[in-house]
Amino acid sequence: MEDLLKFGRAILEFQPFSKLVGAELTSFEAGSAEISLPVREELKQQHGFVHGGVVSYLVDNCLTYAGGSVLGDSVTTEYKINFVRPAIGDTLIARSSVISSGKRVAVCECRVFAVKDEQETLVAAAQGTIQKVEER
Amino acid sequence: MEDLLKFGRAILEFQPFSKLVGAELTSFEAGSAEISLPVREELKQQHGFVHGGVVSYLVDNCLTYAGGSVLGDSVTTEYKINFVRPAIGDTLIARSSVISSGKRVAVCECRVFAVKDEQETLVAAAQGTIQKVEER
Amino acid sequence: MEDLLKFGRAILEFQPFSKLVGAELTSFEAGSAEISLPVREELKQQHGFVHGGVVSYLVDNCLTYAGGSVLGDSVTTEYKINFVRPAIGDTLIARSSVISSGKRVAVCECRVFAVKDEQETLVAAAQGTIQKVEER
Amino acid sequence: MEDLLKFGRAILEFQPFSKLVGAELTSFEAGSAEISLPVREELKQQHGFVHGGVVSYLVDNCLTYAGGSVLGDSVTTEYKINFVRPAIGDTLIARSSVISSGKRVAVCECRVFAVKDEQETLVAAAQGTIQKVEER
Repeated sequence: MEDLLKFGRAILEFQPFSKLVGAELTSFEAGSAEISLPVREELKQQHGFVHGGVVSYLVDNCLTYAGGSVLGDSVTTEYKINFVRPAIGDTLIARSSVISSGKRVAVCECRVFAVKDEQETLVAAAQGTIQKVEER
Repeated sequence: MEDLLKFGRAILEFQPFSKLVGAELTSFEAGSAEISLPVREELKQQHGFVHGGVVSYLVDNCLTYAGGSVLGDSVTTEYKINFVRPAIGDTLIARSSVISSGKRVAVCECRVFAVKDEQETLVAAAQGTIQKVEER
Repeated sequence: MEDLLKFGRAILEFQPFSKLVGAELTSFEAGSAEISLPVREELKQQHGFVHGGVVSYLVDNCLTYAGGSVLGDSVTTEYKINFVRPAIGDTLIARSSVISSGKRVAVCECRVFAVKDEQETLVAAAQGTIQKVEER
Repeated sequence: MEDLLKFGRAILEFQPFSKLVGAELTSFEAGSAEISLPVREELKQQHGFVHGGVVSYLVDNCLTYAGGSVLGDSVTTEYKINFVRPAIGDTLIARSSVISSGKRVAVCECRVFAVKDEQETLVAAAQGTIQKVEER
């Protein structure tokens, strides 16, 4: 288990954009993943909320991790996201899990929460397809 | 027309995340918008392509602009994105337009292209809902 | 609780298409709904599986019920569906629940299962937006 | 061209659900398809509009035809639909086209119109993934 997390973190380390954003892989197991992101000014939009593009990044990446945990090297080929509340907080946490998987494709879901005063609030829900890289 | 573009650019200027990413509003008219993004290392993932989260950011933001061009101050409440090819190039260009709109809601589409050697290649297609802010 | 189920069934009774298809509301509570559908030849496509349009119908309707259970008279304004396996079985069961809801909008999810020899197999997963009718 | 249309119609003929609904393939070319559906009481919901499940069926089927026109025998693996207006009219027409395609996968879009007094009104817009059957 710890090896998987280490491996996942090494991949995140190789994603320059994830480093620019400041994302951290906080859990990575067969079938699920969790990414945390400390909120800072640079990640916001004009109303002071975290930018929808940042929430989208979290979903995109966290979905790939969940799918990749059962498929190996993978990419997210498509997803759908609903923003349900403005993202306000000190940290964003994305949690994804596998809904269904085969040899080459997994369908996964992701929820993004904003954490403020240790309270989690759902800000987005997503569902998407992850595909093994060799088979694309 | 030029006033709308100026106005749109002022808003982008107030989005710290758009500045961090380096996006530029290159066209903004009633019913459509275009955002350009020079590609740099910091925007990539581990395979050397532009990160899916960056492409998602472009879609999210460009959809909001298209919807906002007919609704006024707006947010993207949901969208769906298909990644059709790895994003490789010097610049990414997102183009969005209104499919249907009412007083409070617009459904818009967006296409993202990677530009390399002056040739555009489609890398993603998206469709989503934009809602007037007061009415959310 | 039983009154809500009775009420929901009365609405289904007023949907000519639901009668044509043969759907039955088997559970309806605040925040969730279940619709069952006996499979017959007329609902299939050319490969002998239940038609994707039938699975889509179940998702569309079941999402509306879940959202309607907390919003009142509602419509599904958009949804996304992933077909994860061919729909083969004697009965299809759609189960939906509310992910997040406000005064006028609910985001819901739905899973569709095919039942064969008393065993349920997931055939589709969906997520969508349900909107109160007066506010559309 | 006419052979392709004949071939497409033969497949529709083998879909019992398409016959139950009453759909007709009115155009089928490399990269696009059109399905028409005469509206009758049996296809409606409780408010007198054509049921969202019927509109979904049209989208699902028409997307598969567009993708199949370039891929061969195919299935729709996922799609997203926005309902933009109640479906009121004498006929529904779904038109789909390929946005992007490879050897095994095509991303397509679909628009559904309601026709009343010879005037077409957009009622739904969709985007989805079509996959070659052998490769699923």
